[in-house]
Amino acid sequence: MNIDKIRQDIRGLSDGKIFLNNAGSSLMPIPVVDSMIDYLQQEEQFGGYEIANRNAELLEQFYEETAKLINCKSSNIAFATSATEAYAMALSSITFKEGDVIITTVDDYISNQITFISLKKKLNVKIIRMKNLPDNELDLEDLENLIKQYHPKLIAVTHIPTNSGLIQNVEAVGKICKKYDILYLVDACQSVGQMVVDVEKISCDFLTATGRKFMRGPRGTGFLYVSDKVLEQNYAPLLLDMRGAHWSAFDDYELFKTAKRFEHWELSYASLLGFTEALKYANNIGMHAIEHYNKGLSERLRENLKNSGFQIWDQGNNLSSIITFCSPDGDLENIQKVLKESNVFFSVTYKNSALIDFTNKNINGIVRLSPHYFNTLEEVEKVSNILRIIL
Amino acid sequence: MNIDKIRQDIRGLSDGKIFLNNAGSSLMPIPVVDSMIDYLQQEEQFGGYEIANRNAELLEQFYEETAKLINCKSSNIAFATSATEAYAMALSSITFKEGDVIITTVDDYISNQITFISLKKKLNVKIIRMKNLPDNELDLEDLENLIKQYHPKLIAVTHIPTNSGLIQNVEAVGKICKKYDILYLVDACQSVGQMVVDVEKISCDFLTATGRKFMRGPRGTGFLYVSDKVLEQNYAPLLLDMRGAHWSAFDDYELFKTAKRFEHWELSYASLLGFTEALKYANNIGMHAIEHYNKGLSERLRENLKNSGFQIWDQGNNLSSIITFCSPDGDLENIQKVLKESNVFFSVTYKNSALIDFTNKNINGIVRLSPHYFNTLEEVEKVSNILRIIL
Ligand SMILES: Cc1ncc(COP(=O)(O)O)c(C=O)c1O
Ligand SMILES: Cc1ncc(COP(=O)(O)O)c(C=O)c1O
Repeated sequence: MNIDKIRQDIRGLSDGKIFLNNAGSSLMPIPVVDSMIDYLQQEEQFGGYEIANRNAELLEQFYEETAKLINCKSSNIAFATSATEAYAMALSSITFKEGDVIITTVDDYISNQITFISLKKKLNVKIIRMKNLPDNELDLEDLENLIKQYHPKLIAVTHIPTNSGLIQNVEAVGKICKKYDILYLVDACQSVGQMVVDVEKISCDFLTATGRKFMRGPRGTGFLYVSDKVLEQNYAPLLLDMRGAHWSAFDDYELFKTAKRFEHWELSYASLLGFTEALKYANNIGMHAIEHYNKGLSERLRENLKNSGFQIWDQGNNLSSIITFCSPDGDLENIQKVLKESNVFFSVTYKNSALIDFTNKNINGIVRLSPHYFNTLEEVEKVSNILRIIL
Repeated sequence: MNIDKIRQDIRGLSDGKIFLNNAGSSLMPIPVVDSMIDYLQQEEQFGGYEIANRNAELLEQFYEETAKLINCKSSNIAFATSATEAYAMALSSITFKEGDVIITTVDDYISNQITFISLKKKLNVKIIRMKNLPDNELDLEDLENLIKQYHPKLIAVTHIPTNSGLIQNVEAVGKICKKYDILYLVDACQSVGQMVVDVEKISCDFLTATGRKFMRGPRGTGFLYVSDKVLEQNYAPLLLDMRGAHWSAFDDYELFKTAKRFEHWELSYASLLGFTEALKYANNIGMHAIEHYNKGLSERLRENLKNSGFQIWDQGNNLSSIITFCSPDGDLENIQKVLKESNVFFSVTYKNSALIDFTNKNINGIVRLSPHYFNTLEEVEKVSNILRIIL
C-alpha cells in the first residue's frame, strides 16, 4: 500500500488537517470528484437521458465493482441513495403481519431501531433484542432459544455499531439463520470499505452499506445486496416501480430477475458514477490490505488513549477502526476543544443516538475517532500527544 | 421574459441543438450545475458533514423555494430523490388493509400503476380506475358514484400523464375528495415547472414532483408536498428513520413535526442544492409567465403538426407542453430518423409504458416533443418544417 500516492489523491489534505471522521463522512479521492464533475458537465450539454444512454456500459461497472468488493454477482446488487434507504427497501419486501417477530441486537443503529418501532406501532410486529454476553459478544445460545420460542420472521444485526468499536460476529449469526431458515439482514454500513466483508461467509439474505463513510464515495449513495435465494423467491419492494417489473397486463406485472428491482427507476447517475470510482479505488488497493493497515492504526490509537488515562468505551473481543472515548470524569468538551484547535476532524455522539448502549454504559456521550488507510501512524501519534496533554 | 438571457444561461445550447425533451430530462441552467460542482469541491476539501453544517442555512432554501413554487409553507415540503420515491414515501404512510380501495385513472403513470398492482398482489388492495368522458375529461359523476360504492382509502391522479398532452382537472377531483374526506395524492411530475401548480387550489393531501424535467434541476431530485392536515394526523413513512423521529425510549419515538419526516436522513446535498437553484430560477421568472409562454409554443407546434397531416394523440380539453403524435400510417421510424439527423432532441414511448392508454387508442407508440420556455417560436417552426417534408 503506497500511502504517499494515496494521500496525493486527496485534495482535501493539502491544508494539513488530520481527518479522523471516516465513520462519519470521509474525504473523497480525486477520481471520485472528477468523475462526478465530468458527468454533470456532460449532462449539462445534452440532458440526463442522452448521457445515461451514452455511458450505459460505464454505469454498469457500479454493479461489477460492488460485487467484487463483497464477493457476489452483479445481479445481487441494487444501488441505493443511503444505507437507510437500502434497509427500507429490503424490509419493505417482507410482508409483516400482526405478531410477526424481528430479532435484533441492543447495539443496532438508531434508524434501524426507529424503523422497527414503527413496524411495531403500525403493524403490531414484535421486537426482541438478543442478549450480550459479559464480554459484550452476542449471546448465541440466547439467540437459538429466542428462535425456538418466537419463530422470528427476520434477524437483523448491525455489523459494526456506529458508537462503539465492536465488530459483531455476523458469520456466527448467519450460520444460525441458515440452520433455522430465517431471513437475515445485515447492516454493514460501517464495515464495508473498512474491512473485508464477504456475503458468502456471512451467509445473509440482505446486506446494506453506504457510500460516504469508509468507502470514501459521495453523499447520497449506498447499496443493497440481495441473495439469489431471496431473488428467486420473488422478494421485491412493496412499492415497486417500473425499475422492478414489466407491466404485462392492466392489472399484472412480471418481476425483473436481478436485484435492480430494489431500486427506484430514477437516480443521480453522477453520484452512482462517483461511488463506482470509490469502489474501484478500494478494490484496487484491496480490502485485505486496507483491513490490515486499519487494524494497526486503530489499535495504536486506542492503546495510546488508554495509556494516557482516557476512558475507552469500545467493547467486545474484536475491535474496529471506530474508537470511542471520554475523559475519566466523562467530560467531552475539553477533548472537542483541543481537537478543533489542532485541525483534527472527529465526531461526538450523545445518548439520544445510542439510547440502549449508552444507558447500559451509563454515559451521556463519547468522542469518536475513526482513522482510515490514508491516515498515518505519525498522525495517530500526533493526535495521541495532543490529547494526552489535557489530562 | 428575456429569452436571450435564458438561452445564454444554458451551455448545452451552444452547438445549435433544438432541445424538445423537457418532459424527459431537460437542460440545466448554469447556476444549477455550477452550484453542484462548487459544493462537491467543498465536500472534497472538508468531508460531507462539515460542509453540510457550514451551508445549513443555504440548504434550507430548498424548502422555502419549493414552498413558494407551489404555494404552501416550507414545513409541508420533503426532499425526495425522484417523483417515484416521493410517491412511495407518501403511500407508505397509509396503512392499507385487505379490501381497501384505491381509485385512480386509466392515464396514471406506469410506475404508479405497478405500485398499485403490487399493493393488490401483496395486501389485497382493490384498484378501481375512474372512467373518462367521451371528450377524455375525467368522469366526475362516475367518481362520486365510485366513492359512494367503495368508500376508497385513497384517490390518486396524475396531473399531466407522461404520454399524452392531457391536463387532468385535479382541482375538481380535489373538491370531491374534500367533500367525502378522502386522502388525495396528486402526481405532478410533468406539471411542476411547466405550469402553475397551486396545492391550495388543488386541495390535495400529497403531491409529488421531480427535479430533472420541466423544473430543469439535476437527476436524482424531487419533492413531496404533505398537507398540514395529514401532518397533524401523524402520517409518517412506514419505514421511518432518525430523520423523522426522536428516539425517546427503548421501544418508542416521538415524530418530528414537519414533512421532513418523509425524507431519509442521508441525501446528496450537492443535488439538493442544484435543485434549489433550479427552483429559484423558475421562481424568478415566474410560473405564470412560463405557463403562458409554454402554451403559445405547444399550441403552435401541435397545430403545425396537425396541419401537416400528422396524427396527434393528445386528448382532452386542456392541453399541455407535451405533444404526442405519429405518421398517419402509425409509423414512428421515419420521424425519429429525421429528428435525429436535424439535431432535435425528443423521446418515443411504446405501448408497454402506457398500456391502458395506448390499448384504448389502439396504437403501438408515439413520438413526444415537449418544448419549454427556453425554446423559441423559430425552433418550433423549424422542427415543424423538418417534419412536414417527410409526409
Ligand atoms: C451502523 C450504521 N447503520 C446505518 C447508518 C445509516 O447510513 P445512511 O446515513 O447512509 O443511511 C449508519 C450511519 O451512520 C450507521 O453507522
Ligand atoms: C407523470 C409521471 N409521474 C411520475 C414519473 C416518475 O418520475 P421519476 O422518474 O422522477 O420518479 C414520471 C416520469 O416520467 C412521469 O412522467
